[in-house]
Amino acid sequence: MADRDPNISHPTVTTGPIRGSKKIYVEGRDGLRVAMREVHLEPSSGEPPVPVYDPSGPYTDPDAAIDIEAGLPELRRDWIRARGDVEEKTQRAVKAEDNGQLGPDRSGGVKPFPNVRRRVLRAKPGMNVTQMHYAKKGIITPEMEYVAIRENLGRKEALGTPRDGESFGAAIPDFITPEFVRDEIARGRAIIPANINHPEAEPMAIGRNFLVKINANIGNSAVASDVASEVDKMVWATRWGADTVMDLSTGRNIHDTREWILRNSPVPIGTVPIYQALEKVGGIAEDLTWEIFADTLIEQAEQGVDYFTIHAGVRLPYVPLTAKRVTGIVSRGGSIMAKWCLAHHRESFLYEKFDEICEIMKAYDVSFSLGDGLRPGSIADANDVAQFAELYTLGELTKKAWAHDCQVMIEGPGHVPMHKIKENMDKQLESCGEAPFYTLGPLTTDIAPGYDHITSAIGAAQIGWYGTAMLCYVTPKEHLGLPDRDDVKVGVVTYKLAAHAADLAKGHPAAKVRDDALSRARFEFRWRDQFNLSLDPDTAEQYHDQTLPAEGAKTAHFCSMCGPKFCSMKITQEVRDFAAKQEAGVLNSLSPEPHAPVDGSKVDDAEDGMEKMSRLYREKGERLYLDEEEVE
Amino acid sequence: MADRDPNISHPTVTTGPIRGSKKIYVEGRDGLRVAMREVHLEPSSGEPPVPVYDPSGPYTDPDAAIDIEAGLPELRRDWIRARGDVEEKTQRAVKAEDNGQLGPDRSGGVKPFPNVRRRVLRAKPGMNVTQMHYAKKGIITPEMEYVAIRENLGRKEALGTPRDGESFGAAIPDFITPEFVRDEIARGRAIIPANINHPEAEPMAIGRNFLVKINANIGNSAVASDVASEVDKMVWATRWGADTVMDLSTGRNIHDTREWILRNSPVPIGTVPIYQALEKVGGIAEDLTWEIFADTLIEQAEQGVDYFTIHAGVRLPYVPLTAKRVTGIVSRGGSIMAKWCLAHHRESFLYEKFDEICEIMKAYDVSFSLGDGLRPGSIADANDVAQFAELYTLGELTKKAWAHDCQVMIEGPGHVPMHKIKENMDKQLESCGEAPFYTLGPLTTDIAPGYDHITSAIGAAQIGWYGTAMLCYVTPKEHLGLPDRDDVKVGVVTYKLAAHAADLAKGHPAAKVRDDALSRARFEFRWRDQFNLSLDPDTAEQYHDQTLPAEGAKTAHFCSMCGPKFCSMKITQEVRDFAAKQEAGVLNSLSPEPHAPVDGSKVDDAEDGMEKMSRLYREKGERLYLDEEEVE
Repeated sequence: MADRDPNISHPTVTTGPIRGSKKIYVEGRDGLRVAMREVHLEPSSGEPPVPVYDPSGPYTDPDAAIDIEAGLPELRRDWIRARGDVEEKTQRAVKAEDNGQLGPDRSGGVKPFPNVRRRVLRAKPGMNVTQMHYAKKGIITPEMEYVAIRENLGRKEALGTPRDGESFGAAIPDFITPEFVRDEIARGRAIIPANINHPEAEPMAIGRNFLVKINANIGNSAVASDVASEVDKMVWATRWGADTVMDLSTGRNIHDTREWILRNSPVPIGTVPIYQALEKVGGIAEDLTWEIFADTLIEQAEQGVDYFTIHAGVRLPYVPLTAKRVTGIVSRGGSIMAKWCLAHHRESFLYEKFDEICEIMKAYDVSFSLGDGLRPGSIADANDVAQFAELYTLGELTKKAWAHDCQVMIEGPGHVPMHKIKENMDKQLESCGEAPFYTLGPLTTDIAPGYDHITSAIGAAQIGWYGTAMLCYVTPKEHLGLPDRDDVKVGVVTYKLAAHAADLAKGHPAAKVRDDALSRARFEFRWRDQFNLSLDPDTAEQYHDQTLPAEGAKTAHFCSMCGPKFCSMKITQEVRDFAAKQEAGVLNSLSPEPHAPVDGSKVDDAEDGMEKMSRLYREKGERLYLDEEEVE
Repeated sequence: MADRDPNISHPTVTTGPIRGSKKIYVEGRDGLRVAMREVHLEPSSGEPPVPVYDPSGPYTDPDAAIDIEAGLPELRRDWIRARGDVEEKTQRAVKAEDNGQLGPDRSGGVKPFPNVRRRVLRAKPGMNVTQMHYAKKGIITPEMEYVAIRENLGRKEALGTPRDGESFGAAIPDFITPEFVRDEIARGRAIIPANINHPEAEPMAIGRNFLVKINANIGNSAVASDVASEVDKMVWATRWGADTVMDLSTGRNIHDTREWILRNSPVPIGTVPIYQALEKVGGIAEDLTWEIFADTLIEQAEQGVDYFTIHAGVRLPYVPLTAKRVTGIVSRGGSIMAKWCLAHHRESFLYEKFDEICEIMKAYDVSFSLGDGLRPGSIADANDVAQFAELYTLGELTKKAWAHDCQVMIEGPGHVPMHKIKENMDKQLESCGEAPFYTLGPLTTDIAPGYDHITSAIGAAQIGWYGTAMLCYVTPKEHLGLPDRDDVKVGVVTYKLAAHAADLAKGHPAAKVRDDALSRARFEFRWRDQFNLSLDPDTAEQYHDQTLPAEGAKTAHFCSMCGPKFCSMKITQEVRDFAAKQEAGVLNSLSPEPHAPVDGSKVDDAEDGMEKMSRLYREKGERLYLDEEEVE
């Protein structure tokens, strides 16, 4: 453990199990242990535990020792080294400008991470360490095995039940094999963002034929935030389900903040390197150079960033296409590059140096997230020529990157009304050869600031259904301010539910397991199971308790909406009991065939039977519950 | 004004303008004054006020005198009487059981509304007072004229701009004429819920070719709530945009609570009469009779309820179809009728007496909201045979009601995964002859209790887009407890944004006006305009102020997300200014044709031009802003 300087605050994070859940590890080949959690139900249910996908890392494992100043254990260390294609080198020295400091003071109040690795990894000369490279060579890596086990969650139990969904041409298998993962990575239809310098992260896949993932953005800005709260936000976001986290810091201390985040992150971390590069040139876009940008890529690749947003599709001739938009260029990276292009009257250096960028990416296995610098920032600008011109170029760059065996995903909008969402997905699939799509929302109207997690969840659920592989969350503070801890949680839970709605609609084989378990718990008034199976058990219980706070109410067979005397669930149970008794009786003889229109005309024919049943009902004391032997 | 008893609390409600908005009245024929509001923008914008649809009634008019104990003015009184087809009668005496009181104490703590009308209206014998009846006879009522003006909101300004949307076969005109409204009502494609005993309500239309409407549910239960907070919730819900309100009270004091709500409601009020009927028989479903139900319909029709949910589609043979469901029957009305049918082994009296129900409805112009008593209560039960059997019967009943010239809408689910939503709309349109569809959500996953306003907004926006005319809101408390004032607001705003997203996607002619105005305000950092144009200005400002509370920040040309130094909107403005200067210059010569793929190959040809522009940029001091004369 590092020395603790009492003069500097030590960041703390939320640890401990999510209530009602138990951390489990599913064993794979060669000692592979894949983290998940299980929700255990009340014994009265007679049901097995429900497995839940869990990106929260060791923080939710009560047996794990958490020390933020030491960082997480290096889960992938041996896998990476065993491949024999990496070498150690001394980490590039941290410069004052890496932290946005003009003077000699490096920290600006942020304590450097105490346990920095002095020696970092990169590919040996001539070697390529990307998961795509291995996949194309037919190698199944431990990362791919991990992903296969992780994605299968509940599928074994679901095997044999009929598939139900509309996947719009996706190729979702009944069961995920490591070979399937390898094949998807080799084709470029999925990525495993896994920088060799971020061995702490648990492998996960982003691709149309896997579960829909979500990303949470964190990061300080020049106006607000500090390192402790950013590390906590990362842990907090993954606790509620963020599959990756982007550090979008733009103020000072970018380098040190990122080190704290990476060393403690169980999920892949993404960045937008141009933000830091811009800080290094004092915020003057025109002063950016390829050399400063390339040096920033190496700095961040050595730290372990798993994917870079690079706005290489913002080409000089596209910039004037945005001039008549209502909201112009809203992407920060896009506007930086647009300004650079206009100022120099030159093609973007990101576009021109793309092969050189690929050389850096493949030496660390940093995945591309090709940025949509010209995404629409309003309903008025959706699906315009600027946006699609850039998408076309992103497709061209995807093929270039794939020629280097670099992993690629494509960023998408933004603000799009519902009737224009599918065109985005269709054009992306066509232009970019099915590389995973990663969209921000989209927001389906502009008129609800303060509720843009919802305007965008409507679009996100739809585009996820159509085939988007990862959804970047939007918090209630979007357009208004920086998200705090509560906003991060609301954003993550909102996007988890949107992603899950997409999984259900696509027909992921076991997606319905959790819905069904929760619905059964609801029907049987197992309140605790209902809370524990929900995406946010704490809020569910808190809302329940606002109307019926007593402990007894959680086991009561009624709820505050209808009260104890009258409850539709209770009546249904009576109907069900009754119908069960009549299995071969008159009521079922009236039942129409499934899916045939029912006109009820058989009712008249059955009058005799009804009369008989009614007599029985009166004779037996007008009870709905009859014992088996009471019905002949 | 009524006497005020100091021993009884006097309900108060929120009044005063919504911030940034001004109540206006658009004049129509014969002194018709149609209420709307206008958002006035900063003079610097140079833009006209933005008109906004406004169901909030006189409460948001600072010139209106509000007295909750007197009730609202009777806007429609003279229109109704002028038709010469109604007669006055003495109101049915209130019985103790109307308020769920078994003993002689009528009030149970709820003060009767002080200004009850002793004389109520009904159709003269042989007369039919429904809007559909007038419409079929070719009569354009003042209610239809009111609706036409109300729906046109901003359309005059939008005339001539190209239509943009996918309406799935709806017939949305560029401009709404009173004759169009009449024709839609006559065809049964729209309704104007307008009981002749609720003259306080401002006419509004529910139909696929009008703006998508939303309903908010309020109502006490046996466990919680009181009359003051229910009246306040009604006013509060309409303040934020509820187009109709349903009073779902199930506890005691149902009659008196409803009287308070109706006399003060500017929007149509709906109820589920079977709830009150059940209270009258002490909560024993089997004891319900047609006579008690019919008497309840008359009681409520005389009070002025505008639409009744009637679960006449829950037929005896359908009940066993629900027995194997995961969540059985979740509709309260549906389960009451199912229990009645099973207990008596008889067809539902609602189904058998449907013609007699129509006779009551048309004597007051109460609209049918044919209830979906067998709607799915979980993803597992969506689109099953029970649900569609009932829908088929609702279609049959729609035709019966139309034969009586009764207005009808059809209730829909519930819990439906995204890929099964459209089938609901398609089957409803087909079975029910395009009668307006009125759905609850649907919720697109079951795993997010506490966030079901969002799981359902995802489904609601989609089904609204496909053609649903009114969306019944879901609050964050759904499945957990009774909504409080904050939940009501969150539910209403969430559903307003979902309905608006649907209007945009359907291509309602002027729907985009507000989005575009807000986006321009956002781009130009007119913070106050951005707040005022949003669905919830108070929350938007509050969120903004959490990061940048100073008053100056609201006029600052940056926001907390990027800080003052670096802002993409600012850069875009520079790009735009630059492009404007170059209108005929080299940059535009590089612009591809709209919607043609752009390959950037022209860039090389243009090197000379770029070199020249770059030189100019350096010569002029590296400024992005050049005066007109500085560019040759």
